[in-house]
Amino acid sequence: MKIKLFATLAAMLCVGALQAQELANFRNQAPIVSPEVGTSSVTFRILAPAASDVKLYGSWMPAYGDRENLTKNENGVWEISVPMPAPELYTYNFFVDGVYVNDANNVMMQRDGTRYLSIFIVDGANTANYREAASRRGNLEHVWYDSPTLGMNRRMYVYTPYGYETSGETYPVLYLLHGGGGDEDAWSTMGRACQILDNLIAQGKAKPMLVVMPNGNATQQAARTLMPEKTIDRNDPSTANLYIHSLAKDIVPFIEKNYRVKAERDSRAVSGLSMGGGHTIAVSGNYPGLFGYICPMSTGIREDHGLDAQLQAIKAAGYKLYWVACGDTDGSCYKKNIWRVIKNSVYWSLSR
Amino acid sequence: MKIKLFATLAAMLCVGALQAQELANFRNQAPIVSPEVGTSSVTFRILAPAASDVKLYGSWMPAYGDRENLTKNENGVWEISVPMPAPELYTYNFFVDGVYVNDANNVMMQRDGTRYLSIFIVDGANTANYREAASRRGNLEHVWYDSPTLGMNRRMYVYTPYGYETSGETYPVLYLLHGGGGDEDAWSTMGRACQILDNLIAQGKAKPMLVVMPNGNATQQAARTLMPEKTIDRNDPSTANLYIHSLAKDIVPFIEKNYRVKAERDSRAVSGLSMGGGHTIAVSGNYPGLFGYICPMSTGIREDHGLDAQLQAIKAAGYKLYWVACGDTDGSCYKKNIWRVIKNSVYWSLSR
Repeated sequence: MKIKLFATLAAMLCVGALQAQELANFRNQAPIVSPEVGTSSVTFRILAPAASDVKLYGSWMPAYGDRENLTKNENGVWEISVPMPAPELYTYNFFVDGVYVNDANNVMMQRDGTRYLSIFIVDGANTANYREAASRRGNLEHVWYDSPTLGMNRRMYVYTPYGYETSGETYPVLYLLHGGGGDEDAWSTMGRACQILDNLIAQGKAKPMLVVMPNGNATQQAARTLMPEKTIDRNDPSTANLYIHSLAKDIVPFIEKNYRVKAERDSRAVSGLSMGGGHTIAVSGNYPGLFGYICPMSTGIREDHGLDAQLQAIKAAGYKLYWVACGDTDGSCYKKNIWRVIKNSVYWSLSR
Repeated sequence: MKIKLFATLAAMLCVGALQAQELANFRNQAPIVSPEVGTSSVTFRILAPAASDVKLYGSWMPAYGDRENLTKNENGVWEISVPMPAPELYTYNFFVDGVYVNDANNVMMQRDGTRYLSIFIVDGANTANYREAASRRGNLEHVWYDSPTLGMNRRMYVYTPYGYETSGETYPVLYLLHGGGGDEDAWSTMGRACQILDNLIAQGKAKPMLVVMPNGNATQQAARTLMPEKTIDRNDPSTANLYIHSLAKDIVPFIEKNYRVKAERDSRAVSGLSMGGGHTIAVSGNYPGLFGYICPMSTGIREDHGLDAQLQAIKAAGYKLYWVACGDTDGSCYKKNIWRVIKNSVYWSLSR
């Protein structure tokens, strides 16, 4: 019986994988190097002998919509070299006769929600931590959990620091929330959260901690690469803040039951980017005393949701740090409106 | 101090993610549905008003190189409907003026080594298990481990069945090895191993087990999406079978030390596809008695490596099942050469 079951399993596994895996491995690939990151320039190349127009967009360019023309050589390879941009992780794509095309010669790609983007890193002091740590790398788990609040079985990613499995110690937890368009995959791929944590911990700049990266879309069980979205009636008042409540009522308790973590306010941090910054403000405001560290990044603030009262409640419940990140030219922060709000409300409530 | 460290961490995390994550979320996307899987046909669409030629290749077509022409409508959208192929997971891509292009309107994509492929599933009895199980889903962990044999810290994926975290039970382990061009990511994405296992376990057709999916390329610490490859001198005899030895000496002991598994021959299965089938034959032959279940799939066999003696040793050491998978039209099996070998050697050695 056991034999038959294994044979069944193996046969079923085989059927699915064979078709896809074997198809594309052994095709001819032109030996085209792209991108070629040199010392003073970056060169991009694409084989397109029959195309009549090839352009490049890269995230170092001032605005989306800007494009640079490539030039075709005698072999049908289109090429462009651009001055080396400042150290950073950049995304780019080609436009071949107007059609968006990823760089087939670059295996490094990110998914931003529904969109795939070719990427490269210009190395420098501020990108050193984007590369894999030399050793002592933490693990990343794709975890399914029940969310009674959302009525779904859902997926989140959990980073555990190097040594977690055998140390016997308990750890603090950072709940790290993605931006609009993203999902549970965003922080570990686009955000390179594991690499950054591994490096900061190895350098003694961060304490070993777990990082929990949930899916912030209340319509999704998991990323759309895996499963289609469900419909939620946004006009139904009972759906308001559903994700926020699932975070506090489902996710935090699940983590504290199933992982060796310190289940106390000052060992819980919450932070998020853009939409995740909004979620950070909302979950900390709706559950004062749950998080000791609160860090919304590049987000707007809505003052009409009782924000000041929530901040007063956070102050009363106690916290270690409320840290608001907004870049000087960050359009996500709604034209620096957040600074005004901070002065009027956050700063007032939390700092005096 | 703790406050400062968290602020540093948050700032560093922010810089990396903001650039990429926020860029592409809010661009206009034409409401193009592709692929549209109907009841009797599948329709593919791509917006390419300036292109002069758009073709489609799909893995249901007889041979790579076959392509079908799309037709442009008045809105610049190219379209083709093809008769519904039999239930299966299919890959496809467009050629826009000769250039390979993924379907930007389809979020479902797989990476086959260095190549990205748009995919869709035609539902049917033989693909039902490719979809996520209704409930009781196992988790998938990206695990770093030291390989003294290869002199590297390396990454593998480990599937743990539903309930593993809290059951207190011990489990059997399947070591599942990818094919040429693949890496540790291949079985869980292209092969949909987690979905298939979840479903088979839920249906009572497979026992709950761990599935360990290592990286079979001795030059790689991890997938090339993460880190560049190292160079290994293939002419150096000491590099022969390095991965095979690391599997037996590094990976199996790591799993049996760090996971709640049954550390015994008949609770260890090894299986692999194509190159992974070769690895399966090699690791079981080099370490007779290590695996109770041995299942090479769609692979060739080399008789000149002392295969018969290895098979005799497996027989002497004891095993539960040696199961060879080769499809009737499977070119990977070297024109059915494997059947001859099985008759002459494997079958002879193992079955009589």
